[in-house]
Amino acid sequence: MTEPLAPGATIGILGGGQLGRMLSMAAARLGYKTCIFDPAGDCPASHVANYHLKAAYDDAGALEQFAQSCDVITFEFENIPTAALDILERHRPIRPGRDALRISQDRLTEKRWLADLGLTPAPFADIPDRAALDAALADLGTPAILKTRRFGYDGKGQVRIDDASQSGAAFDAMQGAPAILEGFVAFEREISVIAARGLDGAVACYDPGENVHRDGILHTTTLPAQIPHGLATDAVLLASRILTALDYVGVMGIELFVTPRGLLVNEIAPRVHNSGHWTQNGATIDQFEQHIRAVAGLPLGDGARFGDIVMENLVGDYADRLDAILRDPTAALHLYGKSEPRPGRKMGHVNRRVG
Amino acid sequence: MTEPLAPGATIGILGGGQLGRMLSMAAARLGYKTCIFDPAGDCPASHVANYHLKAAYDDAGALEQFAQSCDVITFEFENIPTAALDILERHRPIRPGRDALRISQDRLTEKRWLADLGLTPAPFADIPDRAALDAALADLGTPAILKTRRFGYDGKGQVRIDDASQSGAAFDAMQGAPAILEGFVAFEREISVIAARGLDGAVACYDPGENVHRDGILHTTTLPAQIPHGLATDAVLLASRILTALDYVGVMGIELFVTPRGLLVNEIAPRVHNSGHWTQNGATIDQFEQHIRAVAGLPLGDGARFGDIVMENLVGDYADRLDAILRDPTAALHLYGKSEPRPGRKMGHVNRRVG
Repeated sequence: MTEPLAPGATIGILGGGQLGRMLSMAAARLGYKTCIFDPAGDCPASHVANYHLKAAYDDAGALEQFAQSCDVITFEFENIPTAALDILERHRPIRPGRDALRISQDRLTEKRWLADLGLTPAPFADIPDRAALDAALADLGTPAILKTRRFGYDGKGQVRIDDASQSGAAFDAMQGAPAILEGFVAFEREISVIAARGLDGAVACYDPGENVHRDGILHTTTLPAQIPHGLATDAVLLASRILTALDYVGVMGIELFVTPRGLLVNEIAPRVHNSGHWTQNGATIDQFEQHIRAVAGLPLGDGARFGDIVMENLVGDYADRLDAILRDPTAALHLYGKSEPRPGRKMGHVNRRVG
Repeated sequence: MTEPLAPGATIGILGGGQLGRMLSMAAARLGYKTCIFDPAGDCPASHVANYHLKAAYDDAGALEQFAQSCDVITFEFENIPTAALDILERHRPIRPGRDALRISQDRLTEKRWLADLGLTPAPFADIPDRAALDAALADLGTPAILKTRRFGYDGKGQVRIDDASQSGAAFDAMQGAPAILEGFVAFEREISVIAARGLDGAVACYDPGENVHRDGILHTTTLPAQIPHGLATDAVLLASRILTALDYVGVMGIELFVTPRGLLVNEIAPRVHNSGHWTQNGATIDQFEQHIRAVAGLPLGDGARFGDIVMENLVGDYADRLDAILRDPTAALHLYGKSEPRPGRKMGHVNRRVG
């Protein structure tokens, strides 16, 4: 399929969390139907989708059925099993493609790929065994962070090492999972750029946002980021290089460290990204519609921002804050329809116009 | 229920067209589930709702089931059969309430009620029979419009009379349906005000928009309307009087004629309104969320507009315009998921930022 997807077509989305939910609503605005594939029964995206196929990611029959019910397939998370992709790809295009998934599923592969592309990831070392960890700590110094190569998110699968004496405990905490050590980056700020690439190769970027984390989870993204114009340009050029190298189709979130030596690439996410949620209330075409446009082969929005904005995540129990948020005339609330507000769980976010 | 509806509750929506669709997405943003009641199988709202109860409005069992699956009930159209309301009301609150429906379902009742409230409707006369029509034409003059008292929308159920000699044909065209004659209003422009009233009695209005119709169907709404500030104030005061008199809960669309003698009330619609679609891209809280907030007993948004905007309806076949709309950086597209672009059918709309 290289023709634009006509209204009425169905977009399949792997993963039914909040990102799938907001993708589904954006697809509806463009006249598309959506089919969500997710093992969980009452998942957030299922509330606003045409169909929900409730099945496990290793259920070959369900994956076949899913693929045949869609015109194109996308996803809201990068850790999709390779075997599932093999099945799906036989029937329908998957966008973004497998290269982006392969690279972003493994921190070591990602960092090596970024370095090969001429970009600067945070300093890192492969940690196949305990001896490698001790050598890497001697090389990169402390503090440093030991991370599993795969399946980490929101601070999970990570251990901070402040002193070389902690290396044994940190290594054991990985429970034998392949890991990498990341050296400490004395960054001034963390920014992220939400970039998109269309089926025609066009690239569009939103203004970089400035991120603040709390307990390993994104807390706020503020637009504009307090960075010189030149750095914003660097971020766009760097994003364009990454997307083009991957022949990428869709939205990507790229987390960057601003350092005295320039921009370091912290992480790439081949999907819509939490730090791009501000676009819902600060840009005519938000990141969710931008992703759907790309995946559907439509022209991209240009990404223009029309206001200053702060996105704040609502993590855990937010009930006692709800009334104040609803009464704040600058605040746009976006809840995810999750029933249990567990600690550390993203329940929604608020976009506040600050200018 | 006077407590605010907690996230996770279910809002029932009678009618599954584009208004129900956009209400459903707004409800989802606030963490609510939605259940759509509509006889049509693949109706626009069903694509983005948790549940769709496909049944006729005279199916008592289905109405019972619907009411029991919801915490509160609202609607996207005013012509709901009274018998259906009787059944629903036994189980759950209906918002807005029945007074607003009773009045707006009948053009004659509506105009008399507005006049009793001290407002000025367009000149009108009750037309129980042919003699009354001839008398009314002599009184109100021509041109005039003969309209059925009930079930008219988008120019349907209306006949224009340019000369008294046409009265016989016009009367016959009503096919015996109760009718009213509306006198010609030499208006300078038509505006509408989208107003909301909360469960606590608070009233919030959006800036009036200026409407242009084409073939009896709304073509564009432009913000701001080119009217003096004083008239905008009059519109707000008038809206507030209407909503408060009805003890109204929800969003109402009020169409007004701007005349040399001030504002005339053309029509009220006890629901979200086509002329309020601009709020999706021109206000932090759009009319759909505003309605859901009211119905759920939440605080209203203040209605502030943050940009100049033109809403244009996409009526009938729009396929050859789609690419240009998608490439227009000022344009936000909202399609309704309808499969057949029949002439006169509203398929979507575009909000364009013009400042």
